[in-house]
Amino acid sequence: MSPEQALDPGLRSVPVRRRGVRLEQDLVVVEEPLEIRVNGKPLVVTMRTPGHDDELAAGFLWAEGVVTKPGEIISMHASSGTGDSGTQIRVTEFSGDRIDVTLPASTSADDERAVRSAEREFRATAACGVCGKSEIDDLQQDLPTITRVEAQTALLEQLPDRLRQAQQLFDATGGIHAAGLFDLEGQLLCAREDIGRHNAVDKVIGHSVRLNAVPLTDRILVVSGRAGFELVQKALKAAIPVMVSVGAASSLAVSMATDAGMALYSFAGPGRGNLHVKA
Amino acid sequence: MSPEQALDPGLRSVPVRRRGVRLEQDLVVVEEPLEIRVNGKPLVVTMRTPGHDDELAAGFLWAEGVVTKPGEIISMHASSGTGDSGTQIRVTEFSGDRIDVTLPASTSADDERAVRSAEREFRATAACGVCGKSEIDDLQQDLPTITRVEAQTALLEQLPDRLRQAQQLFDATGGIHAAGLFDLEGQLLCAREDIGRHNAVDKVIGHSVRLNAVPLTDRILVVSGRAGFELVQKALKAAIPVMVSVGAASSLAVSMATDAGMALYSFAGPGRGNLHVKA
Repeated sequence: MSPEQALDPGLRSVPVRRRGVRLEQDLVVVEEPLEIRVNGKPLVVTMRTPGHDDELAAGFLWAEGVVTKPGEIISMHASSGTGDSGTQIRVTEFSGDRIDVTLPASTSADDERAVRSAEREFRATAACGVCGKSEIDDLQQDLPTITRVEAQTALLEQLPDRLRQAQQLFDATGGIHAAGLFDLEGQLLCAREDIGRHNAVDKVIGHSVRLNAVPLTDRILVVSGRAGFELVQKALKAAIPVMVSVGAASSLAVSMATDAGMALYSFAGPGRGNLHVKA
Repeated sequence: MSPEQALDPGLRSVPVRRRGVRLEQDLVVVEEPLEIRVNGKPLVVTMRTPGHDDELAAGFLWAEGVVTKPGEIISMHASSGTGDSGTQIRVTEFSGDRIDVTLPASTSADDERAVRSAEREFRATAACGVCGKSEIDDLQQDLPTITRVEAQTALLEQLPDRLRQAQQLFDATGGIHAAGLFDLEGQLLCAREDIGRHNAVDKVIGHSVRLNAVPLTDRILVVSGRAGFELVQKALKAAIPVMVSVGAASSLAVSMATDAGMALYSFAGPGRGNLHVKA
Protein backbone atom coordinates (compact mmCIF):
# COMPACT_ATOMS: atom_id res chain seq x y z
CA MET A 1 0.00 0.00 0.00
CA SER A 2 1.30 3.39 -0.93
CA PRO A 3 1.58 5.72 2.03
CA GLU A 4 -0.56 8.21 0.13
CA GLN A 5 -3.56 5.91 0.16
CA ALA A 6 -4.23 6.69 3.79
CA LEU A 7 -4.07 10.43 3.23
CA ASP A 8 -6.91 12.88 3.04
CA PRO A 9 -7.65 13.59 -0.65
CA GLY A 10 -6.58 17.17 -0.01
CA LEU A 11 -3.06 16.14 0.97
CA ARG A 12 -0.09 14.83 -0.98
CA SER A 13 3.27 13.64 0.25
CA VAL A 14 6.22 15.05 -1.68
CA PRO A 15 9.99 14.84 -1.25
CA VAL A 16 11.72 17.99 0.01
CA ARG A 17 15.20 18.92 1.11
CA ARG A 18 14.94 20.76 4.41
CA ARG A 19 17.09 23.86 4.11
CA GLY A 20 18.27 22.30 0.88
CA VAL A 21 20.03 19.41 2.64
CA ARG A 22 18.12 16.65 4.43
CA LEU A 23 15.78 14.70 2.18
CA GLU A 24 12.37 14.12 3.74
CA GLN A 25 8.79 13.61 2.78
CA ASP A 26 6.47 16.54 3.40
CA LEU A 27 2.75 17.03 3.03
CA VAL A 28 1.49 19.65 0.60
CA VAL A 29 -2.03 20.75 -0.17
CA VAL A 30 -3.46 19.25 -3.32
CA GLU A 31 -4.37 21.77 -6.03
CA GLU A 32 -6.19 20.11 -8.90
CA PRO A 33 -8.78 21.12 -11.46
CA LEU A 34 -12.46 20.29 -11.13
CA GLU A 35 -14.83 20.70 -14.02
CA ILE A 36 -18.38 21.71 -13.14
CA ARG A 37 -21.02 20.77 -15.69
CA VAL A 38 -24.62 21.91 -15.59
CA ASN A 39 -27.16 19.78 -17.44
CA GLY A 40 -24.35 18.19 -19.42
CA LYS A 41 -22.75 21.45 -20.44
CA PRO A 42 -19.25 22.39 -19.20
CA LEU A 43 -19.56 25.61 -17.21
CA VAL A 44 -16.23 26.13 -15.46
CA VAL A 45 -12.95 24.52 -14.51
CA THR A 46 -11.77 25.56 -11.09
CA MET A 47 -8.54 24.79 -9.29
CA ARG A 48 -9.47 23.45 -5.90
CA THR A 49 -8.44 21.10 -3.12
CA PRO A 50 -10.34 17.79 -3.55
CA GLY A 51 -13.01 17.07 -0.98
CA HIS A 52 -16.64 18.26 -0.68
CA ASP A 53 -16.78 18.87 -4.41
CA ASP A 54 -20.57 18.71 -4.35
CA GLU A 55 -20.67 21.54 -1.84
CA LEU A 56 -18.14 23.51 -3.86
CA ALA A 57 -20.29 23.18 -6.96
CA ALA A 58 -23.51 24.01 -5.09
CA GLY A 59 -21.98 27.06 -3.43
CA PHE A 60 -20.42 28.25 -6.66
CA LEU A 61 -23.70 27.92 -8.56
CA TRP A 62 -25.51 29.76 -5.75
CA ALA A 63 -22.98 32.59 -5.72
CA GLU A 64 -23.28 32.94 -9.47
CA GLY A 65 -27.05 32.98 -9.45
CA VAL A 66 -27.40 29.78 -11.48
CA VAL A 67 -29.10 28.10 -8.53
CA THR A 68 -31.49 30.57 -6.90
CA LYS A 69 -33.94 28.47 -4.92
CA PRO A 70 -33.39 25.89 -2.18
CA GLY A 71 -34.09 22.43 -3.50
CA GLU A 72 -33.46 23.41 -7.10
CA ILE A 73 -30.56 20.98 -7.54
CA ILE A 74 -32.03 17.71 -8.81
CA SER A 75 -28.84 15.69 -8.58
CA MET A 76 -25.05 15.91 -8.46
CA HIS A 77 -22.74 13.23 -9.77
CA ALA A 78 -19.00 13.25 -9.17
CA SER A 79 -16.53 11.36 -11.34
CA SER A 80 -12.84 11.00 -10.68
CA GLY A 81 -10.34 12.04 -13.26
CA THR A 82 -7.60 9.91 -14.70
CA GLY A 83 -4.92 12.55 -14.82
CA ASP A 84 -2.55 13.52 -12.09
CA SER A 85 -1.69 17.14 -11.47
CA GLY A 86 1.11 18.40 -13.58
CA THR A 87 0.25 16.26 -16.55
CA GLN A 88 -3.43 17.10 -16.64
CA ILE A 89 -2.82 20.54 -17.88
CA ARG A 90 -1.21 19.29 -21.04
CA VAL A 91 -4.00 17.11 -22.30
CA THR A 92 -6.41 18.24 -24.95
CA GLU A 93 -9.54 16.70 -23.50
CA PHE A 94 -10.29 17.43 -19.90
CA SER A 95 -9.49 14.28 -17.97
CA GLY A 96 -9.62 15.53 -14.42
CA ASP A 97 -12.27 15.34 -11.76
CA ARG A 98 -15.74 16.37 -12.79
CA ILE A 99 -19.03 17.04 -11.14
CA ASP A 100 -22.25 16.88 -13.13
CA VAL A 101 -25.07 19.01 -11.77
CA THR A 102 -28.63 18.46 -12.91
CA LEU A 103 -30.95 21.42 -12.63
CA PRO A 104 -34.54 21.73 -13.86
CA ALA A 105 -34.48 21.75 -17.66
CA SER A 106 -34.46 25.17 -19.26
CA THR A 107 -37.96 25.84 -20.42
CA SER A 108 -37.66 29.52 -21.15
CA ALA A 109 -35.23 31.88 -22.79
CA ASP A 110 -34.72 33.42 -19.36
CA ASP A 111 -33.13 30.25 -18.02
CA GLU A 112 -30.83 30.08 -20.99
CA ARG A 113 -29.82 33.64 -20.34
CA ALA A 114 -29.10 32.89 -16.70
CA VAL A 115 -26.63 30.15 -17.59
CA ARG A 116 -25.00 32.27 -20.25
CA SER A 117 -24.77 35.13 -17.80
CA ALA A 118 -23.20 32.80 -15.24
CA GLU A 119 -20.62 31.71 -17.76
CA ARG A 120 -19.49 35.29 -17.89
CA GLU A 121 -19.98 36.19 -14.29
CA PHE A 122 -17.97 33.43 -12.70
CA ARG A 123 -14.96 35.02 -14.22
CA ALA A 124 -15.91 38.42 -12.97
CA THR A 125 -16.20 37.23 -9.41
CA ALA A 126 -13.01 35.24 -9.17
CA ALA A 127 -11.25 35.73 -5.85
CA CYS A 128 -8.13 36.83 -7.59
CA GLY A 129 -10.06 39.66 -9.10
CA VAL A 130 -9.17 38.90 -12.69
CA CYS A 131 -12.42 39.36 -14.50
CA GLY A 132 -13.40 37.73 -17.71
CA LYS A 133 -15.55 40.65 -18.65
CA SER A 134 -14.38 43.65 -20.55
CA GLU A 135 -17.05 45.78 -18.91
CA ILE A 136 -17.47 45.94 -15.18
CA ASP A 137 -21.27 45.84 -15.13
CA ASP A 138 -21.26 42.07 -14.97
CA LEU A 139 -19.71 42.36 -11.55
CA GLN A 140 -23.10 43.44 -10.34
CA GLN A 141 -24.99 40.70 -8.65
CA ASP A 142 -28.62 40.66 -7.63
CA LEU A 143 -28.02 40.71 -3.91
CA PRO A 144 -30.73 39.96 -1.36
CA THR A 145 -31.50 42.50 1.34
CA ILE A 146 -29.49 41.91 4.49
CA THR A 147 -31.32 41.72 7.81
CA ARG A 148 -29.02 43.66 10.08
CA VAL A 149 -27.71 41.89 13.16
CA GLU A 150 -26.06 43.64 16.08
CA ALA A 151 -22.43 42.58 16.04
CA GLN A 152 -21.38 41.16 19.41
CA THR A 153 -17.69 41.82 19.03
CA ALA A 154 -16.81 40.07 22.30
CA LEU A 155 -18.22 36.94 20.68
CA LEU A 156 -16.90 37.57 17.18
CA GLU A 157 -13.30 37.87 18.34
CA GLN A 158 -13.45 34.29 19.63
CA LEU A 159 -14.61 32.73 16.38
CA PRO A 160 -11.29 32.53 14.51
CA ASP A 161 -9.87 30.33 17.29
CA ARG A 162 -12.94 28.09 17.13
CA LEU A 163 -12.53 27.77 13.38
CA ARG A 164 -8.81 27.16 13.79
CA GLN A 165 -9.51 24.02 15.81
CA ALA A 166 -11.33 22.56 12.81
CA GLN A 167 -8.56 23.30 10.31
CA GLN A 168 -7.10 19.83 9.98
CA LEU A 169 -5.47 20.29 6.60
CA PHE A 170 -3.84 23.48 7.84
CA ASP A 171 -2.42 21.51 10.77
CA ALA A 172 -0.87 19.11 8.28
CA THR A 173 0.45 21.63 5.76
CA GLY A 174 0.42 25.18 7.09
CA GLY A 175 -0.85 26.31 3.73
CA ILE A 176 -4.59 26.22 3.19
CA HIS A 177 -7.48 28.61 3.67
CA ALA A 178 -10.55 27.90 5.74
CA ALA A 179 -14.07 29.23 6.08
CA GLY A 180 -16.55 28.52 8.83
CA LEU A 181 -20.26 29.06 9.28
CA PHE A 182 -21.40 29.88 12.81
CA ASP A 183 -24.79 30.57 14.36
CA LEU A 184 -25.38 33.85 16.17
CA GLU A 185 -24.42 32.22 19.48
CA GLY A 186 -21.01 31.39 18.04
CA GLN A 187 -21.45 27.68 17.54
CA LEU A 188 -19.53 26.27 14.59
CA LEU A 189 -21.91 24.63 12.12
CA CYS A 190 -19.63 23.88 9.19
CA ALA A 191 -15.91 24.30 8.49
CA ARG A 192 -14.25 23.71 5.14
CA GLU A 193 -10.70 24.08 3.85
CA ASP A 194 -9.42 24.77 0.35
CA ILE A 195 -6.34 26.18 -1.33
CA GLY A 196 -8.62 28.86 -2.78
CA ARG A 197 -10.22 31.01 -0.14
CA HIS A 198 -13.21 31.61 -2.43
CA ASN A 199 -13.59 27.84 -2.73
CA ALA A 200 -13.61 27.43 1.05
CA VAL A 201 -16.45 29.97 1.21
CA ASP A 202 -18.29 28.26 -1.66
CA LYS A 203 -18.02 24.92 0.15
CA VAL A 204 -19.37 26.31 3.41
CA ILE A 205 -22.28 28.09 1.73
CA GLY A 206 -22.80 25.14 -0.62
CA HIS A 207 -23.13 22.90 2.43
CA SER A 208 -26.19 24.96 3.36
CA VAL A 209 -27.46 24.98 -0.22
CA ARG A 210 -27.30 21.18 -0.19
CA LEU A 211 -29.30 21.20 3.05
CA ASN A 212 -31.83 23.67 1.61
CA ALA A 213 -30.82 26.00 4.44
CA VAL A 214 -30.24 29.15 2.40
CA PRO A 215 -30.65 32.10 2.80
CA LEU A 216 -28.36 32.30 5.83
CA THR A 217 -29.97 35.30 7.53
CA ASP A 218 -28.94 34.25 11.05
CA ARG A 219 -25.43 33.05 10.40
CA ILE A 220 -21.88 34.37 10.73
CA LEU A 221 -19.21 33.66 8.12
CA VAL A 222 -15.62 33.47 9.34
CA VAL A 223 -12.67 33.39 6.93
CA SER A 224 -9.10 32.49 7.85
CA GLY A 225 -7.48 35.10 5.64
CA ARG A 226 -8.28 38.53 4.31
CA ALA A 227 -11.67 39.88 3.34
CA GLY A 228 -11.66 40.84 -0.32
CA PHE A 229 -14.67 42.14 -2.18
CA GLU A 230 -15.38 38.78 -3.73
CA LEU A 231 -15.77 36.97 -0.42
CA VAL A 232 -18.05 39.75 0.84
CA GLN A 233 -20.07 39.40 -2.35
CA LYS A 234 -20.47 35.65 -1.85
CA ALA A 235 -21.59 36.19 1.74
CA LEU A 236 -24.07 38.88 0.71
CA LYS A 237 -25.45 36.63 -2.01
CA ALA A 238 -26.33 34.15 0.74
CA ALA A 239 -27.81 36.98 2.87
CA ILE A 240 -25.20 36.44 5.61
CA PRO A 241 -25.38 39.50 7.92
CA VAL A 242 -22.04 39.17 9.77
CA MET A 243 -18.59 38.38 8.39
CA VAL A 244 -15.38 37.97 10.36
CA SER A 245 -11.91 37.87 8.84
CA VAL A 246 -8.62 37.01 10.51
CA GLY A 247 -6.81 39.25 8.07
CA ALA A 248 -7.33 42.72 6.65
CA ALA A 249 -10.30 43.95 4.64
CA SER A 250 -9.87 45.70 1.31
CA SER A 251 -11.35 49.08 0.45
CA LEU A 252 -13.92 47.50 -1.86
CA ALA A 253 -14.86 44.84 0.68
CA VAL A 254 -15.45 47.57 3.25
CA SER A 255 -17.64 49.67 0.97
CA MET A 256 -19.66 46.68 -0.26
CA ALA A 257 -20.25 45.40 3.25
CA THR A 258 -21.11 48.72 4.84
CA ASP A 259 -23.33 49.72 1.89
CA ALA A 260 -25.30 46.49 2.29
CA GLY A 261 -25.62 46.71 6.06
CA MET A 262 -23.37 43.73 6.72
CA ALA A 263 -21.27 43.81 9.90
CA LEU A 264 -17.69 43.21 8.75
CA TYR A 265 -15.18 42.53 11.52
CA SER A 266 -11.59 42.37 10.28
CA PHE A 267 -8.30 41.48 12.02
CA ALA A 268 -10.44 39.51 14.47
CA GLY A 269 -8.81 37.57 17.27
CA PRO A 270 -8.60 37.46 21.07
CA GLY A 271 -8.68 41.05 22.28
CA ARG A 272 -8.72 42.64 18.86
CA GLY A 273 -10.82 43.38 15.82
CA ASN A 274 -12.02 46.26 13.64
CA LEU A 275 -15.72 46.71 13.01
CA HIS A 276 -16.11 48.56 9.75
CA VAL A 277 -18.65 51.34 9.69
CA LYS A 278 -20.06 53.37 6.83
CA ALA A 279 -17.79 56.23 5.83
CA MET B 1 -6.92 69.29 1.94
CA SER B 2 -8.38 65.90 2.59
CA PRO B 3 -6.11 63.68 4.67
CA GLU B 4 -6.34 61.09 1.91
CA GLN B 5 -4.59 63.32 -0.59
CA ALA B 6 -1.27 62.64 1.04
CA LEU B 7 -1.76 58.89 0.95
CA ASP B 8 -0.24 56.39 -1.38
CA PRO B 9 -2.78 55.53 -4.11
CA GLY B 10 -2.81 52.00 -2.74
CA LEU B 11 -4.11 53.14 0.65
CA ARG B 12 -7.46 54.43 1.88
CA SER B 13 -8.43 55.73 5.28
CA VAL B 14 -11.70 54.32 6.59
CA PRO B 15 -13.56 54.61 9.91
CA VAL B 16 -13.49 51.53 12.15
CA ARG B 17 -14.61 50.73 15.66
CA ARG B 18 -11.76 48.99 17.47
CA ARG B 19 -13.21 45.94 19.16
CA GLY B 20 -16.55 47.41 18.14
CA VAL B 21 -16.20 50.37 20.49
CA ARG B 22 -13.68 53.14 19.89
CA LEU B 23 -14.17 54.98 16.59
CA GLU B 24 -10.91 55.53 14.73
CA GLN B 25 -9.58 55.95 11.24
CA ASP B 26 -7.69 53.01 9.84
CA LEU B 27 -5.82 52.43 6.60
CA VAL B 28 -7.01 49.70 4.26
CA VAL B 29 -5.55 48.50 0.99
CA VAL B 30 -7.30 49.86 -2.07
CA GLU B 31 -8.91 47.22 -4.29
CA GLU B 32 -10.20 48.74 -7.50
CA PRO B 33 -10.74 47.58 -11.06
CA LEU B 34 -8.35 48.35 -13.88
CA GLU B 35 -9.30 47.79 -17.48
CA ILE B 36 -6.49 46.75 -19.80
CA ARG B 37 -7.04 47.54 -23.46
CA VAL B 38 -4.84 46.33 -26.29
CA ASN B 39 -4.91 48.33 -29.51
CA GLY B 40 -8.18 49.91 -28.45
CA LYS B 41 -9.89 46.63 -27.63
CA PRO B 42 -10.91 45.81 -24.02
CA LEU B 43 -9.03 42.67 -22.99
CA VAL B 44 -9.54 42.30 -19.26
CA VAL B 45 -10.71 44.01 -16.11
CA THR B 46 -8.61 43.11 -13.11
CA MET B 47 -9.06 44.01 -9.47
CA ARG B 48 -5.80 45.47 -8.30
CA THR B 49 -4.18 47.93 -5.94
CA PRO B 50 -3.48 51.16 -7.85
CA GLY B 51 0.16 51.94 -8.56
CA HIS B 52 2.54 50.71 -11.26
CA ASP B 53 -0.40 49.95 -13.53
CA ASP B 54 1.85 50.04 -16.58
CA GLU B 55 4.00 47.29 -15.09
CA LEU B 56 0.93 45.30 -14.13
CA ALA B 57 -0.34 45.47 -17.71
CA ALA B 58 3.07 44.65 -19.19
CA GLY B 59 3.58 41.69 -16.86
CA PHE B 60 0.08 40.41 -17.45
CA LEU B 61 0.45 40.60 -21.21
CA TRP B 62 3.81 38.84 -20.99
CA ALA B 63 2.41 36.06 -18.81
CA GLU B 64 -0.46 35.56 -21.23
CA GLY B 65 1.77 35.45 -24.27
CA VAL B 66 0.27 38.57 -25.85
CA VAL B 67 3.63 40.32 -25.58
CA THR B 68 6.39 37.86 -26.48
CA LYS B 69 9.39 40.00 -27.37
CA PRO B 70 11.24 42.67 -25.42
CA GLY B 71 10.50 46.07 -26.89
CA GLU B 72 7.24 44.97 -28.45
CA ILE B 73 5.15 47.43 -26.45
CA ILE B 74 4.91 50.61 -28.51
CA SER B 75 3.19 52.70 -25.86
CA MET B 76 1.09 52.57 -22.71
CA HIS B 77 -1.36 55.25 -21.72
CA ALA B 78 -3.06 55.32 -18.33
CA SER B 79 -6.30 57.18 -17.66
CA SER B 80 -7.92 57.63 -14.27
CA GLY B 81 -11.46 56.56 -13.68
CA THR B 82 -14.24 58.71 -12.35
CA GLY B 83 -15.85 56.13 -10.12
CA ASP B 84 -14.96 55.30 -6.58
CA SER B 85 -14.88 51.73 -5.37
CA GLY B 86 -18.25 50.44 -4.29
CA THR B 87 -20.17 52.50 -6.78
CA GLN B 88 -18.08 51.57 -9.78
CA ILE B 89 -19.39 48.07 -9.87
CA ARG B 90 -22.92 49.25 -10.47
CA VAL B 91 -22.32 51.33 -13.55
CA THR B 92 -23.10 50.07 -17.02
CA GLU B 93 -20.14 51.57 -18.80
CA PHE B 94 -16.75 50.93 -17.34
CA SER B 95 -15.73 54.17 -15.67
CA GLY B 96 -12.74 53.03 -13.66
CA ASP B 97 -9.04 53.28 -14.28
CA ARG B 98 -7.84 52.16 -17.65
CA ILE B 99 -4.57 51.46 -19.35
CA ASP B 100 -4.31 51.48 -23.12
CA VAL B 101 -1.52 49.36 -24.53
CA THR B 102 -0.39 49.79 -28.10
CA LEU B 103 1.25 46.79 -29.73
CA PRO B 104 2.35 46.36 -33.34
CA ALA B 105 -0.76 46.13 -35.50
CA SER B 106 -1.92 42.63 -36.26
CA THR B 107 -0.83 41.81 -39.75
CA SER B 108 -1.53 38.12 -39.78
CA ALA B 109 -4.24 35.75 -38.71
CA ASP B 110 -1.74 34.36 -36.22
CA ASP B 111 -1.66 37.62 -34.32
CA GLU B 112 -5.42 37.73 -34.18
CA ARG B 113 -5.42 34.25 -32.83
CA ALA B 114 -2.90 35.17 -30.15
CA VAL B 115 -5.11 37.93 -28.80
CA ARG B 116 -8.21 35.75 -28.93
CA SER B 117 -6.30 33.00 -27.19
CA ALA B 118 -5.18 35.44 -24.52
CA GLU B 119 -8.75 36.52 -23.95
CA ARG B 120 -9.48 32.97 -22.96
CA GLU B 121 -6.24 32.19 -21.21
CA PHE B 122 -6.16 35.05 -18.76
CA ARG B 123 -9.15 33.44 -17.14
CA ALA B 124 -7.49 30.07 -17.06
CA THR B 125 -4.44 31.40 -15.29
CA ALA B 126 -6.16 33.46 -12.63
CA ALA B 127 -4.46 33.15 -9.26
CA CYS B 128 -7.68 32.03 -7.68
CA GLY B 129 -7.75 29.12 -10.05
CA VAL B 130 -11.19 29.79 -11.44
CA CYS B 131 -10.78 29.18 -15.09
CA GLY B 132 -12.85 30.69 -17.82
CA LYS B 133 -12.28 27.71 -20.02
CA SER B 134 -14.45 24.65 -20.07
CA GLU B 135 -11.53 22.52 -21.23
CA ILE B 136 -8.25 22.47 -19.39
CA ASP B 137 -5.98 22.47 -22.43
CA ASP B 138 -5.96 26.24 -22.51
CA LEU B 139 -4.05 26.14 -19.26
CA GLN B 140 -1.05 25.05 -21.26
CA GLN B 141 1.37 27.81 -21.88
CA ASP B 142 4.32 27.80 -24.20
CA LEU B 143 6.99 27.92 -21.55
CA PRO B 144 10.62 28.72 -22.28
CA THR B 145 13.31 26.28 -21.23
CA ILE B 146 14.69 27.02 -17.79
CA THR B 147 18.44 27.31 -17.35
CA ARG B 148 18.97 25.49 -14.09
CA VAL B 149 20.66 27.40 -11.30
CA GLU B 150 22.10 25.80 -8.19
CA ALA B 151 19.92 26.94 -5.30
CA GLN B 152 22.01 28.48 -2.53
CA THR B 153 19.55 27.88 0.27
CA ALA B 154 21.66 29.76 2.83
CA LEU B 155 21.11 32.80 0.62
CA LEU B 156 17.51 32.06 -0.32
CA GLU B 157 16.34 31.87 3.27
CA GLN B 158 17.43 35.50 3.78
CA LEU B 159 15.44 36.91 0.88
CA PRO B 160 11.97 37.11 2.48
CA ASP B 161 13.35 39.43 5.16
CA ARG B 162 14.99 41.59 2.51
CA LEU B 163 11.69 41.78 0.62
CA ARG B 164 9.85 42.49 3.86
CA GLN B 165 11.85 45.68 4.36
CA ALA B 166 10.44 47.00 1.09
CA GLN B 167 6.82 46.22 1.89
CA GLN B 168 5.63 49.72 2.75
CA LEU B 169 1.94 49.16 2.13
CA PHE B 170 2.06 46.04 4.30
CA ASP B 171 3.57 48.14 7.08
CA ALA B 172 0.60 50.48 6.80
CA THR B 173 -2.16 47.89 6.51
CA GLY B 174 -0.99 44.38 7.38
CA GLY B 175 -2.97 43.11 4.44
CA ILE B 176 -1.22 43.10 1.08
CA HIS B 177 0.89 40.68 -0.90
CA ALA B 178 4.35 41.41 -2.22
CA ALA B 179 6.71 40.04 -4.82
CA GLY B 180 10.37 40.81 -5.26
CA LEU B 181 12.93 40.22 -7.96
CA PHE B 182 16.47 39.52 -6.82
CA ASP B 183 19.70 38.81 -8.62
CA LEU B 184 21.59 35.59 -7.93
CA GLU B 185 23.67 37.34 -5.29
CA GLY B 186 20.51 38.17 -3.38
CA GLN B 187 20.28 41.87 -4.18
CA LEU B 188 16.75 43.22 -4.39
CA LEU B 189 16.11 44.72 -7.83
CA CYS B 190 12.38 45.39 -7.71
CA ALA B 191 9.64 45.00 -5.10
CA ARG B 192 5.94 45.52 -5.72
CA GLU B 193 2.84 45.17 -3.59
CA ASP B 194 -0.74 44.37 -4.56
CA ILE B 195 -3.87 42.96 -2.97
CA GLY B 196 -3.66 40.19 -5.58
CA ARG B 197 -0.55 38.09 -5.26
CA HIS B 198 -0.66 37.36 -9.00
CA ASN B 199 -0.75 41.11 -9.63
CA ALA B 200 2.32 41.65 -7.45
CA VAL B 201 4.17 39.08 -9.57
CA ASP B 202 2.87 40.63 -12.80
CA LYS B 203 4.13 44.04 -11.65
CA VAL B 204 7.59 42.73 -10.79
CA ILE B 205 7.96 40.85 -14.06
CA GLY B 206 6.30 43.71 -15.95
CA HIS B 207 8.94 46.05 -14.54
CA SER B 208 11.51 43.96 -16.40
CA VAL B 209 9.34 43.78 -19.51
CA ARG B 210 9.21 47.59 -19.51
CA LEU B 211 13.02 47.65 -19.23
CA ASN B 212 13.35 45.08 -22.04
CA ALA B 213 15.11 42.87 -19.49
CA VAL B 214 13.16 39.65 -20.09
CA PRO B 215 13.80 36.72 -20.07
CA LEU B 216 14.93 36.69 -16.45
CA THR B 217 17.30 33.72 -16.64
CA ASP B 218 19.54 34.92 -13.78
CA ARG B 219 16.91 36.18 -11.37
CA ILE B 220 15.15 34.94 -8.26
CA LEU B 221 11.46 35.60 -7.65
CA VAL B 222 10.34 35.90 -4.02
CA VAL B 223 6.67 35.95 -3.04
CA SER B 224 5.30 36.93 0.35
CA GLY B 225 2.61 34.28 0.46
CA ARG B 226 2.07 30.78 -0.82
CA ALA B 227 3.30 29.35 -4.09
CA GLY B 228 0.34 28.25 -6.17
CA PHE B 229 0.61 26.82 -9.66
CA GLU B 230 -0.30 30.09 -11.27
CA LEU B 231 2.58 32.03 -9.72
CA VAL B 232 4.99 29.27 -10.71
CA GLN B 233 3.58 29.45 -14.24
CA LYS B 234 4.13 33.21 -14.40
CA ALA B 235 7.72 32.78 -13.19
CA LEU B 236 8.39 30.01 -15.70
CA LYS B 237 6.94 32.12 -18.51
CA ALA B 238 9.64 34.69 -17.70
CA ALA B 239 12.29 31.92 -17.54
CA ILE B 240 12.99 32.60 -13.86
CA PRO B 241 15.01 29.63 -12.53
CA VAL B 242 14.55 30.10 -8.76
CA MET B 243 11.40 30.90 -6.81
CA VAL B 244 11.12 31.45 -3.06
CA SER B 245 7.84 31.55 -1.14
CA VAL B 246 7.28 32.53 2.47
CA GLY B 247 4.28 30.22 2.60
CA ALA B 248 3.50 26.71 1.47
CA ALA B 249 3.63 25.35 -2.06
CA SER B 250 0.71 23.49 -3.59
CA SER B 251 0.94 20.04 -5.17
CA LEU B 252 0.53 21.48 -8.66
CA ALA B 253 3.08 24.23 -8.04
CA VAL B 254 5.58 21.57 -6.92
CA SER B 255 5.04 19.35 -9.94
CA MET B 256 5.16 22.26 -12.41
CA ALA B 257 8.35 23.67 -10.88
CA THR B 258 10.21 20.38 -10.53
CA ASP B 259 9.13 19.23 -14.02
CA ALA B 260 10.54 22.44 -15.50
CA GLY B 261 13.79 22.35 -13.54
CA MET B 262 12.94 25.39 -11.44
CA ALA B 263 14.31 25.48 -7.89
CA LEU B 264 11.26 26.10 -5.69
CA TYR B 265 12.03 26.92 -2.05
CA SER B 266 8.91 27.11 0.12
CA PHE B 267 8.38 28.14 3.76
CA ALA B 268 11.57 30.16 3.40
CA GLY B 269 12.85 32.22 6.29
CA PRO B 270 15.80 32.48 8.66
CA GLY B 271 16.92 28.93 9.45
CA ARG B 272 14.18 27.22 7.47
CA GLY B 273 12.97 26.31 4.02
CA ASN B 274 11.97 23.33 1.88
CA LEU B 275 13.64 22.79 -1.47
CA HIS B 276 11.25 20.82 -3.63
CA VAL B 277 12.74 17.98 -5.62
CA LYS B 278 11.29 15.83 -8.37
CA ALA B 279 9.19 12.97 -7.00
